[in-house]
Amino acid sequence: MNKLYVVGMGPGAYEEMTVRAVKILEQCQVIVGYTLYVDLIREHFSEKEFLTTPMRREIERCRLALKTAQAGRTTAMICSGDAGVYGMSGVLLEMSRDYPEAEIEIVPGVTAAVSGAACLGAPLMHDFAVISLSDLMTPWELIERRLRSAAEADFVICLYNPSSRKRSDYLKRACDILLHFRKAGSLCGVVRNIAREGMTSRVCTLEELREMKTDMFTTVFIGNSGTKQVNGHLVTPRGYSL
Amino acid sequence: MNKLYVVGMGPGAYEEMTVRAVKILEQCQVIVGYTLYVDLIREHFSEKEFLTTPMRREIERCRLALKTAQAGRTTAMICSGDAGVYGMSGVLLEMSRDYPEAEIEIVPGVTAAVSGAACLGAPLMHDFAVISLSDLMTPWELIERRLRSAAEADFVICLYNPSSRKRSDYLKRACDILLHFRKAGSLCGVVRNIAREGMTSRVCTLEELREMKTDMFTTVFIGNSGTKQVNGHLVTPRGYSL
Repeated sequence: MNKLYVVGMGPGAYEEMTVRAVKILEQCQVIVGYTLYVDLIREHFSEKEFLTTPMRREIERCRLALKTAQAGRTTAMICSGDAGVYGMSGVLLEMSRDYPEAEIEIVPGVTAAVSGAACLGAPLMHDFAVISLSDLMTPWELIERRLRSAAEADFVICLYNPSSRKRSDYLKRACDILLHFRKAGSLCGVVRNIAREGMTSRVCTLEELREMKTDMFTTVFIGNSGTKQVNGHLVTPRGYSL
Repeated sequence: MNKLYVVGMGPGAYEEMTVRAVKILEQCQVIVGYTLYVDLIREHFSEKEFLTTPMRREIERCRLALKTAQAGRTTAMICSGDAGVYGMSGVLLEMSRDYPEAEIEIVPGVTAAVSGAACLGAPLMHDFAVISLSDLMTPWELIERRLRSAAEADFVICLYNPSSRKRSDYLKRACDILLHFRKAGSLCGVVRNIAREGMTSRVCTLEELREMKTDMFTTVFIGNSGTKQVNGHLVTPRGYSL
């Protein structure tokens, strides 16, 4: 059996990878990934062979990784954040049935909900729901149902893929649903380019979030009914008596 | 201003910390934490001063960390998993108003939802909710409401603190709620002692989960309606056509 490591690289910077992820990339022969993410860490592993595919070519990229491992080369497939949160680990496990010599090991990383929360303060201190607004593979009706349920039960909500060029009004539509359940002035946070050049973060109200432009590098947080601002940080209290 | 770093150490093993977390601990003068977690990494930072408090002494531990930083020593407070997910970063930000010389920086880590998922396969590939079953600071009625809402909207659910000695039947009560919404034989997963000695993981049905003994070192996953087993792994499909 030849190893295919599926490595979550964290939000972007080399230093946000785990020690285990770094060691595994150092000992692999081939690193496979989406061009943009490979470029973020390439300089630290300059002697490796890199195989990249552009965006939207996920299945092609997985097949490339499995074939490389099947052929006897120790391979790592890198994903931004964690490979198990809207990443490639699930589909790789499913596809691996056709590549019996490739043995998959999943190496967890810091997903954007967690790294984005750290930039804003501590919005995820209580129960939270993670929802992707991408309807490429999920019916929009199901996304709406999840937004309603999460808001109704007062979860903190973290949104992945809040919008893209083709889905420019999705965040607005999501906010319209959430505004039914949250009182005026409810606190939210937005982080863009976490741990990368040009990182920005901002605390705002749900009404302001509704008017905001976001993109696929943005992670959005909607506080629960108790979320507040502490010295400019977004904090969801857990309930300790101070 | 003196730095107080709030460091998520990941599930337990030194290698599961991020490169940034390791560098920060190396440059700190004092490391503060819960005795059990400090012991997991102590040997790697043998020249540091360690200050520990036992379980349940969270506020005391935070005050100790803030006082140490306020007194001019570069300090790190370590939390298992990520400090922002049922951790100490929120309460530290709130308490820091009384320690104007302590400047808090939050260093994210791999939370148990993510590290546990990697042990089981890929259960979190689609929208998920994270819920703690501890009612120490949350009314049980609110926990039940969140379980119902998350199940009704077909979220994958990850449970933290599924039980303790005082709350031995809480997981059973949670499963009874979830069984109203999931069909018989729905798939779940349980991971104990993630990335520590004696780690175990198991895929089971929701009915089997109901009868299971768990403790505070266990993380529980309840799949959505599409979650399946692939070669013994728990996988929630995202919707790629293979």
